[in-house]
Amino acid sequence: MAQDYRLTAILKIHIHNVASVFLMIDYKLLEALATVIECGGFERAGVALGLSQSAVSQRLRTLEIRLGQPVLIRSPIIKATPAGQRLLNHVQQVQLLERDLAGSIPALSEPTARLRIALNADSLATWWATAIGEFCAEEALLLDMVIEDQDIGLRRMREGDVAACLCSSPQPIAGARCVPVGTMTYLPLATPAYVQRYFSSGFNADNFESAPAIVFGPNDQLQHRFLAQCGYHGPVPHHLCPSSEGFVKLALAGMGYGMIPQAQVQQELDTGQLVNIAPSQSLEVRLYWHFWRHGGGVMDRLTTAIQSASPLNR
Amino acid sequence: MAQDYRLTAILKIHIHNVASVFLMIDYKLLEALATVIECGGFERAGVALGLSQSAVSQRLRTLEIRLGQPVLIRSPIIKATPAGQRLLNHVQQVQLLERDLAGSIPALSEPTARLRIALNADSLATWWATAIGEFCAEEALLLDMVIEDQDIGLRRMREGDVAACLCSSPQPIAGARCVPVGTMTYLPLATPAYVQRYFSSGFNADNFESAPAIVFGPNDQLQHRFLAQCGYHGPVPHHLCPSSEGFVKLALAGMGYGMIPQAQVQQELDTGQLVNIAPSQSLEVRLYWHFWRHGGGVMDRLTTAIQSASPLNR
Repeated sequence: MAQDYRLTAILKIHIHNVASVFLMIDYKLLEALATVIECGGFERAGVALGLSQSAVSQRLRTLEIRLGQPVLIRSPIIKATPAGQRLLNHVQQVQLLERDLAGSIPALSEPTARLRIALNADSLATWWATAIGEFCAEEALLLDMVIEDQDIGLRRMREGDVAACLCSSPQPIAGARCVPVGTMTYLPLATPAYVQRYFSSGFNADNFESAPAIVFGPNDQLQHRFLAQCGYHGPVPHHLCPSSEGFVKLALAGMGYGMIPQAQVQQELDTGQLVNIAPSQSLEVRLYWHFWRHGGGVMDRLTTAIQSASPLNR
Repeated sequence: MAQDYRLTAILKIHIHNVASVFLMIDYKLLEALATVIECGGFERAGVALGLSQSAVSQRLRTLEIRLGQPVLIRSPIIKATPAGQRLLNHVQQVQLLERDLAGSIPALSEPTARLRIALNADSLATWWATAIGEFCAEEALLLDMVIEDQDIGLRRMREGDVAACLCSSPQPIAGARCVPVGTMTYLPLATPAYVQRYFSSGFNADNFESAPAIVFGPNDQLQHRFLAQCGYHGPVPHHLCPSSEGFVKLALAGMGYGMIPQAQVQQELDTGQLVNIAPSQSLEVRLYWHFWRHGGGVMDRLTTAIQSASPLNR
């Protein structure tokens, strides 16, 4: 939010050069930015806003001149710069507040609300849609979901890049609230043939050194924690696979072992296609929902929905 | 590759200041970089290389001084800079060539090979592991998979960031080969309840304007192509969901309609959980495998494996 205020200040000064009056941002410019991103182009944004393409371009140029920096990368694909992304996040939060207002002043038409949320890939691939689907449909709430490592999403929230974050940190950041959502259980899994090939002589350093693992990203904390639990600290040959479903497919194809959410592969565990390579080992990851205090009623109701509908153990 | 040669040139000049002799890169430095990334830390890399942590740090510092730029971002998580990534890609390609050499000179121990590959999320979530799993296990080949939009992976290959790319472009880039892999069929799918709610009056602009879609990223070409086929060019309310499995879950939860690979949801189509919102509409995406000509025998055999084992229609 600090970043948003800095941008707000810059916009104000550029608009009128008077710092003593509280002048608001020119939301027509921000609306143009949000629409270009939403529609994926200037022409379609013009249709949506009832403006010519060149009028939309002009609004974007004005915004960039006032800010003194680009808000949009135009080629090869249209996307927001980091500053543009913070403005978009601000627009989304203002739109959430406008919805509350429309609820109490029916003459105002209810705007569509968008919310940018960082969450971990495994939640998105498993329980997330079930928990929030009905709520989003009922409230006509649209989500921009961003996949982040469990430990990195919060930084994006602090930078004003997302309005809420589902991650494993229990520490609320300044100005935000944090509630527990539940626990995901991870098991170290592979095919029986894989276990036979690489771990038939048990768990020792030699085996870990030669058995290929599957890890989600270069800093997969689950893999490190599992190896530490096994007392192993050496190098591990591994595939990198930044996709939850791809991860399961690689394990099923016998390419490696990996830490997989139990709930994602209950069927494969029941049929014996995947087995725990270290039956006594599992990892629990507690998840927390972080959101800005001033997100308005929609954010409060979304939080309640997540807490009550999440199938995770609390 | 051009980028790699530029870096090579810089390294040579810094090492000896003699441009007329062809001096090779100091591979001990690159090996230290690759091991730090692979192990996710300096201490573990030291164990793997039989060096102290400070010796590993020193090698990285030497590399950065010679290059005149950082190769590693150290905080909050360790990852390669763009220049570091190009060096890693070069090391991987050299290791592939070393494997071929080890095949003809048995006295050389066979090194582990890593290959960095860009591919589309939907391939990774569906047929990819089945096609290459056995080959990777047999050849002890490790993969770094990077998910990219079908139309962006090639750029990363051109920049020397990946050694191969699975994408929808049939145009080979200079120095590389390109072979067809097959076709993925996408259908516009949603739950029956969703269709009833938003499209019961048929396909018209009003419906598209209010029915939430699910798109993979801000420039989802499939969504744009589908709407263009329907003759609609206006704005579309949408969720952004950069996860193949999450995408299917959102559709199943009734949050929107989206273009989903038929093969990924055959079961849900058979049971009627998902239906085609526009039964006459589908999109075919042809996929091509791009790889550097000089990848050695492993790359040739991997290419054969992908072509022969891919379950896609050709």
